[in-house]
Amino acid sequence: MLFLNENDIKKAVTINDVIDAVDSAYRLYEANQFQMPLRMHVSEKENTLLLMPCFTAGAIGTKLVTLFPNNKHVPMLQGIVILNSSETGEVKGILEGSFLTGLRTGAVGGSAVRHLARKDATKLSIIGTGVQGLYQAVAACSQRPITDIYLYNRSPEKLPEFIAQLENWIETTVHLHPMDTVEEAIKNVDIIITSTSSNDPVLPNKKHLLRNKLVIGVGSYQPSMQEFPEALYELTDTILVDTEHAIDESGDLINPLAQGLIKPSSVQKMSTYILSEPKPSLGNTTVFKSTGMALFDVVVANTIYQKAMDKGVGTILSL
Amino acid sequence: MLFLNENDIKKAVTINDVIDAVDSAYRLYEANQFQMPLRMHVSEKENTLLLMPCFTAGAIGTKLVTLFPNNKHVPMLQGIVILNSSETGEVKGILEGSFLTGLRTGAVGGSAVRHLARKDATKLSIIGTGVQGLYQAVAACSQRPITDIYLYNRSPEKLPEFIAQLENWIETTVHLHPMDTVEEAIKNVDIIITSTSSNDPVLPNKKHLLRNKLVIGVGSYQPSMQEFPEALYELTDTILVDTEHAIDESGDLINPLAQGLIKPSSVQKMSTYILSEPKPSLGNTTVFKSTGMALFDVVVANTIYQKAMDKGVGTILSL
Repeated sequence: MLFLNENDIKKAVTINDVIDAVDSAYRLYEANQFQMPLRMHVSEKENTLLLMPCFTAGAIGTKLVTLFPNNKHVPMLQGIVILNSSETGEVKGILEGSFLTGLRTGAVGGSAVRHLARKDATKLSIIGTGVQGLYQAVAACSQRPITDIYLYNRSPEKLPEFIAQLENWIETTVHLHPMDTVEEAIKNVDIIITSTSSNDPVLPNKKHLLRNKLVIGVGSYQPSMQEFPEALYELTDTILVDTEHAIDESGDLINPLAQGLIKPSSVQKMSTYILSEPKPSLGNTTVFKSTGMALFDVVVANTIYQKAMDKGVGTILSL
Repeated sequence: MLFLNENDIKKAVTINDVIDAVDSAYRLYEANQFQMPLRMHVSEKENTLLLMPCFTAGAIGTKLVTLFPNNKHVPMLQGIVILNSSETGEVKGILEGSFLTGLRTGAVGGSAVRHLARKDATKLSIIGTGVQGLYQAVAACSQRPITDIYLYNRSPEKLPEFIAQLENWIETTVHLHPMDTVEEAIKNVDIIITSTSSNDPVLPNKKHLLRNKLVIGVGSYQPSMQEFPEALYELTDTILVDTEHAIDESGDLINPLAQGLIKPSSVQKMSTYILSEPKPSLGNTTVFKSTGMALFDVVVANTIYQKAMDKGVGTILSL
């Protein structure tokens, strides 16, 4: 059995490898080659344990995540992924799960950049500079010749630390611009990525600031959360989603559907789009919404496991 | 984070420690100080993953078990237990789960011997000599001055290996007797423990062979399974159970209830019995039925974790 901590995962894979794994997961999703029950919640007062299992032909994966909102000295969210052999059920890998989740969520955004962004996109906006925003920026930079990243956070005092972290991940030739307003941060970019936990739209309700851009939302994963404004829905007939469950999970889909701003048929699976040849036209303003799923975790974890085995990375343990 | 494999667990605890942990779990059960949802099943063809989480004040534990019935070269059942801190959610321990389950199931039987067997019990019968039977024998020997163990298995060719394994665990002064029939194996004993997966009663339907004995059943954990015969229910008004769910899980309770051989009020919680002072009379023939629960796993795993930390046993890993 192979144990992989955060440093091992960094040694085992590149962000491009993880984006490849996300695309593999889309192929399994489209072909319905997986078993993924609704995740299981166990709660005690304000604390929660989430169990997210998924069977694939390559591996069985279970992500365990704890959410302890009152944590002061350690992260509120802690995770681990257990990989079992799909041949025998044996535990074959145990992987740190929080970094893995950040990486795979970045890679889900990165896959959207890979398949949807204009080839010569150079300017990126990151709205929400938490840990998810970091890996979104890293993944986007791996897919397009990004030269400038415009950063906005509701709490601007957090930007310097984010910039310091991001500089460890990307080429020094990329210019990082902390901005005072969302409007300024998105005005001149090709790609906008929102990764906030906002309950109200974080993008301005102004069509001219959104038109002809790729807009990727990875924040809103609950019905109460929303990042996209009305204006965005008026610019496109198609919202691509990573999973069909997004329609029940994200306020970015629930609200505009309830308000009649989009039709159920406007919500299309990214997996179908990726596998379509020729590609259907999406218009000039392109929208992708992710809420994530355990299938990504297991395929990404199995890719990391295999690359780590090939490279001799990690700690071999005997049960 | 502390990783404990089978050898580490053996170094960390004695069977008596584990029986103490089971008794602690009964105290939590009686006081309702736990959160234990129904276990989650995920299946793909004939293979199954079971997820069994439980919150307690001391730790959050999740047992993952895979059941791959077609395994030829590795055990069909594989398990692992993840322990999270109940203070912060952090993963604090990962423990091998199959041996742990055998040990804790042995200890549930051992607790029944501790609380229910006559003090001078010296003769024990083990019906069903699989891996569970082994730890049942070990646990019983830790609680009473057992001098003779009478062994019966449907496939007698498996007895020599079982005897060889059991000899590693118990004093050489204990005599082990392989027997050709169940009748002979239980005739002269004080304690009978059944640990089979039989769908039909494995004990003979003869009152005189069961009277005045402690009968412990740990095998039947599904409605289709039954180890106890009708005669046993006629000898007692009380069936002690480790968990109230046993009434829906085990054919040893479902069938006699449906047939009117026992009343719902005949089924009593072991936890209530242990904590009662003075003890209610159980008559001369005493019956205990276990189906197990995740609460045992988490309390036992946390005990093993704490003892291992104290002794410096196991592998410290950084996530």
